[in-house]
Amino acid sequence: MKWVNDKAEDVKIAYIGGGSRGWAWGLMSDLAVTEDMCGTVALYDIDKDAAQKNEVIGNKVKELKDCRAAWNYQAVDTLAKALTGADFVVISIMPGTFDEMEIDVHMPEKYGIYQSVGDTSGPGGIMRALRCLPMFEGFAAAIKEYCPNAWVINYTNPMSVCVRTLYRVFPQIKAFGCCHEVFGTQKLLANIVGEVCGLNAVPREDIKVNVLGVNHFTWINQAHYRNWDLMPIYREAAEKSQHDDSPANTDENWMNKHFTSKEKVKFDLFLRFGSIAAAGDRHLAEFCPGKWYLKDPETVTNWGFSITPVAWRKEQLKERLDRSERLYRGEENFELQNTGEEGVKQMRALLGLEDLVTNVNIPNYGQIPNLPMGAIVETNAHFCADSVRPVMAGELPAPIYPLISRILGEQEILVDAVLTRDLNQAFEAFLMDPNMGLPLTEARELFQAMVEGTKSYLGVYL
Amino acid sequence: MKWVNDKAEDVKIAYIGGGSRGWAWGLMSDLAVTEDMCGTVALYDIDKDAAQKNEVIGNKVKELKDCRAAWNYQAVDTLAKALTGADFVVISIMPGTFDEMEIDVHMPEKYGIYQSVGDTSGPGGIMRALRCLPMFEGFAAAIKEYCPNAWVINYTNPMSVCVRTLYRVFPQIKAFGCCHEVFGTQKLLANIVGEVCGLNAVPREDIKVNVLGVNHFTWINQAHYRNWDLMPIYREAAEKSQHDDSPANTDENWMNKHFTSKEKVKFDLFLRFGSIAAAGDRHLAEFCPGKWYLKDPETVTNWGFSITPVAWRKEQLKERLDRSERLYRGEENFELQNTGEEGVKQMRALLGLEDLVTNVNIPNYGQIPNLPMGAIVETNAHFCADSVRPVMAGELPAPIYPLISRILGEQEILVDAVLTRDLNQAFEAFLMDPNMGLPLTEARELFQAMVEGTKSYLGVYL
Amino acid sequence: MKWVNDKAEDVKIAYIGGGSRGWAWGLMSDLAVTEDMCGTVALYDIDKDAAQKNEVIGNKVKELKDCRAAWNYQAVDTLAKALTGADFVVISIMPGTFDEMEIDVHMPEKYGIYQSVGDTSGPGGIMRALRCLPMFEGFAAAIKEYCPNAWVINYTNPMSVCVRTLYRVFPQIKAFGCCHEVFGTQKLLANIVGEVCGLNAVPREDIKVNVLGVNHFTWINQAHYRNWDLMPIYREAAEKSQHDDSPANTDENWMNKHFTSKEKVKFDLFLRFGSIAAAGDRHLAEFCPGKWYLKDPETVTNWGFSITPVAWRKEQLKERLDRSERLYRGEENFELQNTGEEGVKQMRALLGLEDLVTNVNIPNYGQIPNLPMGAIVETNAHFCADSVRPVMAGELPAPIYPLISRILGEQEILVDAVLTRDLNQAFEAFLMDPNMGLPLTEARELFQAMVEGTKSYLGVYL
Amino acid sequence: MKWVNDKAEDVKIAYIGGGSRGWAWGLMSDLAVTEDMCGTVALYDIDKDAAQKNEVIGNKVKELKDCRAAWNYQAVDTLAKALTGADFVVISIMPGTFDEMEIDVHMPEKYGIYQSVGDTSGPGGIMRALRCLPMFEGFAAAIKEYCPNAWVINYTNPMSVCVRTLYRVFPQIKAFGCCHEVFGTQKLLANIVGEVCGLNAVPREDIKVNVLGVNHFTWINQAHYRNWDLMPIYREAAEKSQHDDSPANTDENWMNKHFTSKEKVKFDLFLRFGSIAAAGDRHLAEFCPGKWYLKDPETVTNWGFSITPVAWRKEQLKERLDRSERLYRGEENFELQNTGEEGVKQMRALLGLEDLVTNVNIPNYGQIPNLPMGAIVETNAHFCADSVRPVMAGELPAPIYPLISRILGEQEILVDAVLTRDLNQAFEAFLMDPNMGLPLTEARELFQAMVEGTKSYLGVYL
Repeated sequence: MKWVNDKAEDVKIAYIGGGSRGWAWGLMSDLAVTEDMCGTVALYDIDKDAAQKNEVIGNKVKELKDCRAAWNYQAVDTLAKALTGADFVVISIMPGTFDEMEIDVHMPEKYGIYQSVGDTSGPGGIMRALRCLPMFEGFAAAIKEYCPNAWVINYTNPMSVCVRTLYRVFPQIKAFGCCHEVFGTQKLLANIVGEVCGLNAVPREDIKVNVLGVNHFTWINQAHYRNWDLMPIYREAAEKSQHDDSPANTDENWMNKHFTSKEKVKFDLFLRFGSIAAAGDRHLAEFCPGKWYLKDPETVTNWGFSITPVAWRKEQLKERLDRSERLYRGEENFELQNTGEEGVKQMRALLGLEDLVTNVNIPNYGQIPNLPMGAIVETNAHFCADSVRPVMAGELPAPIYPLISRILGEQEILVDAVLTRDLNQAFEAFLMDPNMGLPLTEARELFQAMVEGTKSYLGVYL
Repeated sequence: MKWVNDKAEDVKIAYIGGGSRGWAWGLMSDLAVTEDMCGTVALYDIDKDAAQKNEVIGNKVKELKDCRAAWNYQAVDTLAKALTGADFVVISIMPGTFDEMEIDVHMPEKYGIYQSVGDTSGPGGIMRALRCLPMFEGFAAAIKEYCPNAWVINYTNPMSVCVRTLYRVFPQIKAFGCCHEVFGTQKLLANIVGEVCGLNAVPREDIKVNVLGVNHFTWINQAHYRNWDLMPIYREAAEKSQHDDSPANTDENWMNKHFTSKEKVKFDLFLRFGSIAAAGDRHLAEFCPGKWYLKDPETVTNWGFSITPVAWRKEQLKERLDRSERLYRGEENFELQNTGEEGVKQMRALLGLEDLVTNVNIPNYGQIPNLPMGAIVETNAHFCADSVRPVMAGELPAPIYPLISRILGEQEILVDAVLTRDLNQAFEAFLMDPNMGLPLTEARELFQAMVEGTKSYLGVYL
Repeated sequence: MKWVNDKAEDVKIAYIGGGSRGWAWGLMSDLAVTEDMCGTVALYDIDKDAAQKNEVIGNKVKELKDCRAAWNYQAVDTLAKALTGADFVVISIMPGTFDEMEIDVHMPEKYGIYQSVGDTSGPGGIMRALRCLPMFEGFAAAIKEYCPNAWVINYTNPMSVCVRTLYRVFPQIKAFGCCHEVFGTQKLLANIVGEVCGLNAVPREDIKVNVLGVNHFTWINQAHYRNWDLMPIYREAAEKSQHDDSPANTDENWMNKHFTSKEKVKFDLFLRFGSIAAAGDRHLAEFCPGKWYLKDPETVTNWGFSITPVAWRKEQLKERLDRSERLYRGEENFELQNTGEEGVKQMRALLGLEDLVTNVNIPNYGQIPNLPMGAIVETNAHFCADSVRPVMAGELPAPIYPLISRILGEQEILVDAVLTRDLNQAFEAFLMDPNMGLPLTEARELFQAMVEGTKSYLGVYL
Repeated sequence: MKWVNDKAEDVKIAYIGGGSRGWAWGLMSDLAVTEDMCGTVALYDIDKDAAQKNEVIGNKVKELKDCRAAWNYQAVDTLAKALTGADFVVISIMPGTFDEMEIDVHMPEKYGIYQSVGDTSGPGGIMRALRCLPMFEGFAAAIKEYCPNAWVINYTNPMSVCVRTLYRVFPQIKAFGCCHEVFGTQKLLANIVGEVCGLNAVPREDIKVNVLGVNHFTWINQAHYRNWDLMPIYREAAEKSQHDDSPANTDENWMNKHFTSKEKVKFDLFLRFGSIAAAGDRHLAEFCPGKWYLKDPETVTNWGFSITPVAWRKEQLKERLDRSERLYRGEENFELQNTGEEGVKQMRALLGLEDLVTNVNIPNYGQIPNLPMGAIVETNAHFCADSVRPVMAGELPAPIYPLISRILGEQEILVDAVLTRDLNQAFEAFLMDPNMGLPLTEARELFQAMVEGTKSYLGVYL
């Protein structure tokens, strides 16, 4: 890259998973509306056709009238080509297909284990990690070889173990993981503040939070708008939520439709533990002992959230494929707008264009002193010129410490298992998961069936 | 106390729970065979009659021909009298009666939760803690007032939270908790060494171990006899154990009757996690997810250990009461001998008479760097003149980290709950326990029933 | 305070040292040009007359045409009145008079010890601390009583020990210390970047630095403009500086007059230690062994900086007193402008009006892991709504570790000495100072003479 | 090695510096009186003749009537031969000759820098390290290759940086450094106890101490005999010492000749800092700012210790050479006796024959939490079967923290300098030493002269 006046030109972004029909289009949009950067996005995907379609789609963007920065998109054949010369690497892949994910999410249901998402922890998240992490070993090795100084942004789940794998393989990597779940909780807080104080449109960025925990099970133990402590206000909302017996599938009747879910899990966790759980209820439930919020479909309904069936994802994929075709053929154009994701903001900060403090997943250097060093934790960090440094989040409060420390421990066992290709150790992680209440024999039966069912992606272990 | 030549005279030991019909007699025996100390043992017990009987029993000891040190025993009415002037304080109490313990252990069985001991963790251990810890608050306050420089030895269960409470109330207290479970594992190792190497009577003290973990769920990650690494030998024994399908209730057929249990849980944990679990199987099972080894009575039998019914304890208490009578009336005498407990050895070390390195429960000052500071951990420590300092045990190995960190976290929530008299927080500890797989509603139902059933000892919360 | 739309009104600032004829006027100016805050500044000073003059001066500000926020200034008699209801507390005092400072700075010269400033460390800084810290004990106690939730900004030197004393007396205090020395180094870097890259007017805020160390001996181990690593550029400037033999008292001939000193100490430290020392040379020299840069006046001259004589300060005070009179009588008005100090920016951030990441002096919570916890260190911190959290600065690099760790150790001895009113311990701090090369006897002689000479302010020890 | 009953046979000890005419003979004696070990000592020395003489001397030992264990001594040509198959490695070398040491110790005197020993820190210690550490790099690499599991005992000075170098080159090395200076302080305490309490011959091992610091500048902050706190007794002795104005060169008149020096430095440090400095005064003085106790020969005399001239060492070497001849020719025999060194005791402990807790120099794993991890610190450690684990010593007390942290920092700079062959960095260590008060120019002049004077041993840097 080079600087021309105050503008960064010839920036190179390597996009691993560049055939993506979601994140990739968001990035195209965010790049297009950012004035002070331009360059090339190299799209790498094992689905070459998808990458090539995105090349075409991306290159149309600069013709749109609202486009303020002309980026070139280029599908490339190899990881090496994508990474060589890259200033930034974006990783957003899908390990396996929705057929594998169907096994991840729904096979355990036969054993009475329900998963609302199934991509992070629990039996599903662990199987997904088994498919995914060996690829991340490859990415880390390639980054070390081709662009060791590039900044690497991961969006792939299971987030924490993906980022941990990058650092285990290449400790000097400049990688971090991004997730918008905390933003959702900030929006919830902004809505509550709005309600209570009669303010309109409080921006979520103005809700200042201290973030600590692990991705998708992140917590907030300090929240302010202006210098107002939001904890008492949140407590009121939580208490009100307890008395809400409205049907689960209607968003109409509570707090002016601001919420896409009823947030009852989130509020319950607050009333029990005193800190704000900062992710969607579907994620939060999966990190708790399985019988709490995911006992059975009825329990889930009563808690006002839902299990996302993989059939729905398959359906939705078809729509995205259709849209891909339309975009590819020019039958549809993006509406260029900021997506609310922060990847491009982070790139700008790393180029020195504007500071940013936001939540991010990186190794623990002491930002949460009572968790193990090196574990991937989520806290705020300060992004500025070629630098991401965590903000000290402080100790995890006692009531949530055991919930989180055990997860980090389970993740470390899992990463060790993958790096040593040891399915027995992976099974130990499986057994320790909070959403795994099975006896040893049944657990092993389930694990083996899940391995068998997804074995076409598990060759390295077999 | 005072020194007369090389002998410590007028040593004062305050015994809280001095009516004990087990530990107290052991102490009498150990004191009687130790030549270089003598003095007074003040026996304090809420069961005054029991204390007075023990006064009589203790004072007979000095008449025995093998007695090498004449100690005076004196039942006292108040804690203040017991503690004033004490050099050592021994705490060994029973919180409540076996009726309460019956609820602790057996009421959860109605909900499918089985407990092999029920005095440490799990529903039973938590209820026991609710009864016990307020008393320990009182002990700590009284020690602070009457004998702040005394060394305090706790034998009471639940060990870790008892010791933690002492330190929370009086941070300068010189207290530690003692437990013989690790000794049992050393004996097992000694027996295995003996078997394998054709040696007779290897003393358990010669098995050198690095100890780390939490009481009753302590682990050994380094074990030697001479400079022989015992891990490979132990692995062989563990693998052999897997193929042992002999009936559970017969000790006759395996490894020359050295073992009182089949140690199958211990061996299984080793094969799964690579470290030696160093407590009896009945304790170990309770710290694991409930479905692993305690799913139901049949599972327990298959793993070669057993659930200790409280009815048995009641029966056994009668025998001890009978023996108490006989000792009291002089119809029976002790056979004086070393009990194998280390309390008196520790006192000698603290008086500067002989160094001792042994396992002990004290706050974490960094001896296990990846566990929270201040948590009560079990490691080796060096006892010498007026000093107990932990030996650096090193980091908890990754495979067992989540099992133990969550326990420490649960214990902290429990102690916080007791100190603030908050049964809701206590219920959160109850919910987080590994042997608690119930849905929220049933868990609450059980908790409330257990509180109700033991309420005569829970007045401070109600 | 209260919020009226997006504006904070009725904010109360307590100014301790409110008779100040420098910092106070700067604050008036910065407050006047800040639109979204207004309220009252309570001026407290032991020099009541000075406070009252500043009341008059401050209240004239709102009549100026550029004034954008009307603040009321009010001289108050007691600390209690100043602090009651305060949202912010500013501390900027002078402990003793310039007569005492004359002893601090110049009496050691008789023993061959030269000090370029004499207000931070060294014999002078230590004597100043002996006068100053007992007052800070009083401030901390009063803040605890009257406004425990207020944010406290200290500008007083010796900075680190002042802030340490606040935290030692009232550990929950929300205090931090501010200093502009790092800004000066950022300006130097901005100038160098400008020179080298042909850019005009690079703002110092755009120079992104990782700050770590102790106040007035702060270091930068990472510096960027945009994403350019400034270390190689700085090295070139440093190497060029070595060959600059121009006379010391002329700024004309080097790097276009950007520098008020020749920065030769700063550059030499960089070449020796590999990190950028981020304070004025006059401060830096005082933290190094005395014979390095402060051996004698000639050495000082050769290094291109100077010893500030207290006679000059006295002279300059007269000018400020004259100006005070003119401002008081309305014969002169402020030109309202941003002073470059960040106090008001920090207040805005703490009110939630705008985030700020800047360097600050607060206790070490692990932001510099290889320095003692609790010591007052200078690093970046994130200021936002009611929150100041350090950014992880990382370990102090090996080459500067011993220079800084010994200073923190010396400061702790000094603070202990003050809190226990123990001049013998204070003398040990005196002896350990890097700028103290005297034999024990002479050192004691000097110490006693300095105590004697300033004893009217040392009553608490005598 | 192998076990025959309870005896370790065929133990192999590699002795690097095996031509030694002091330590080697001590080892021979200690081995000869230890019943339960025997085997071979491989003597390696660059002075092959000396090694061969020691082979002959050593092999005569087994003929002595008091010899209880027959060891074979064998001079070997190469490090590889010495190390192959070794169970233990002993390192005791002299880097360079006394001609180099003459420069180390006496050349700085021309600049007013006096050194009482000159082998640890200060200009002399640093030059010695420059000669010595590259050899230690070689030892570490060879141990890694030939006997990675051997236990390595270092006696060579400068101790801390030698051990640090071993760990920097081969982090898995099982090495520790031994020094008897703490024993001397225990003896002093034993003597004081004896005096005060009228006891005879209190063994130094019965003085229980908590040890913390850096080799030759080690401190004791807790000392007991039996359970008596020795601090008040030591204080009395220290205060008495202040009033002792007897001539320095007479040991006759003070405390019954128990002391080989007047210990005035040690007592002074105690009165100033509250902890007991646990090394000979000649060592302690060198770690303090140079003007405290080493200002000039007269000051040294007044403090009751002395500068050891290298001429004396040369003289004494002649005597040892003569003795070597006599021993070699059989004109003189050892009197076999325990030397008081603990090397052989440590070997026995490592073989599992008997536990030992003693002071030792190993990396900081947290045994002193406020010092940098990895730095070589001296504390107690528990030696047992194949294991050396530090005992938690606790934080360095505030008054001595700066004295010690700066030394560790200086040592790290020095080791970095050696490993990178960077004399400029070595010069920075030289400049930071507490016994270096010179201006920069003179310091460089001295450094260069010392390098020049010892250059035949500094080829790797030149």
